[in-house]
Amino acid sequence: MSIEIHPVRGIPEVVPGDDLAALIVDGLALSAIALQSRDIVVVTHKVVSKAEGRIEPVGDDRGYRELAEREARAILRRRGDLVIAQTEHGFICANAGVDRSNVAEGYAVLLPIDPDRSAHRLRMQLEQVTGIGIAVVVTDTFGRPWRRGVVDVAIGVSGLPAILDLRGQPDAHDRTMSVTEIAVVDEIAAAADLAMGKADTIPVAIVRGLDLTGEGRATDLVRPPAEDLFR
Amino acid sequence: MSIEIHPVRGIPEVVPGDDLAALIVDGLALSAIALQSRDIVVVTHKVVSKAEGRIEPVGDDRGYRELAEREARAILRRRGDLVIAQTEHGFICANAGVDRSNVAEGYAVLLPIDPDRSAHRLRMQLEQVTGIGIAVVVTDTFGRPWRRGVVDVAIGVSGLPAILDLRGQPDAHDRTMSVTEIAVVDEIAAAADLAMGKADTIPVAIVRGLDLTGEGRATDLVRPPAEDLFR
Repeated sequence: MSIEIHPVRGIPEVVPGDDLAALIVDGLALSAIALQSRDIVVVTHKVVSKAEGRIEPVGDDRGYRELAEREARAILRRRGDLVIAQTEHGFICANAGVDRSNVAEGYAVLLPIDPDRSAHRLRMQLEQVTGIGIAVVVTDTFGRPWRRGVVDVAIGVSGLPAILDLRGQPDAHDRTMSVTEIAVVDEIAAAADLAMGKADTIPVAIVRGLDLTGEGRATDLVRPPAEDLFR
Repeated sequence: MSIEIHPVRGIPEVVPGDDLAALIVDGLALSAIALQSRDIVVVTHKVVSKAEGRIEPVGDDRGYRELAEREARAILRRRGDLVIAQTEHGFICANAGVDRSNVAEGYAVLLPIDPDRSAHRLRMQLEQVTGIGIAVVVTDTFGRPWRRGVVDVAIGVSGLPAILDLRGQPDAHDRTMSVTEIAVVDEIAAAADLAMGKADTIPVAIVRGLDLTGEGRATDLVRPPAEDLFR
């Protein structure tokens, strides 16, 4: 199937208490995008967090670091100003997801308390307003061990599987596939980021054309510590 | 910008010595896709490796493991049958990229000797046949620490930057962005995989609509060991 990814323009700076679903509906109209059944609405968590009031003042670098450590369930590594931490959700990322970019000076944005729930709530609101059955993915930008550069990944999902489990399915040679679990929702997050532009000013994109059924959660993507060789 | 991703159908099983560029041109015609300037042709390495003769017989599980260890520059971790290894190119992945899926029984596919060069050669051939300026990305499917499921990443690039370096550019609040290096070519690889279907039977996709200039290499993505906290 062919896939289309459309940026949603015209979403203003989000502040605590904003109705994010309404802002997205306005942005869709401004962008001349009519939602279709099974569209995936991909949203960077920063606007979700801001709407949910997950912003805190941080005085200086030290205040920032203290906030990141408070948001961490566990610290994996430290080097200089960088802390690689596991969040309460189980995700492992820099500074427990606490970020000072794209927010007013003196503030930092935290991850949503429950990004899967945020995705579900946003999906319900968008479906109620539009009458169209969609899926929602909430993303963040994570670094990776071993590979330079960051990529967008999913931290919240509603209306989609997080992982495609192909166990037992035959490959093109009728042999059982060795790669059995595809992190499809992370691929969707990465794809959407391509349409969002470089300066992080477009926080929403529509991914259209995928035929996925199921109901997963981004926390499905958290590898259990006992399976993880790199902690 | 909106992005489109089109699967290229009709590419037959590739065998050593095949003219992969010609097979892709035939597949494009069968798929009713006319290449456009700046299209990105994303190709799973498996067909590149097969065309280049990077297939070897492996008797049994032990032969397979020996081949994976031979292809490794360094072994990072072992657990049961799984070996996490660094390849000669510098990539870190399972079994040094040696894979027995989607190849005839008793054989394994290795990574191309120089996937950046493979991408460049394929790009030159496609540009010569079509007269259209394109980019080529060669992909593989990698697991990740901490996150379940695999995603496609770039192991070869021609005609594109591998990393978008945004250092010094302002964010939406006129503050310097904290996230400065985006692994854009890995996001392209992940996006293309969404159009390739689940059983790995569509080895090529066209990513259209990105406006990227530069000339990177997938080896740009290899994080130098001294910077890497997880080895």
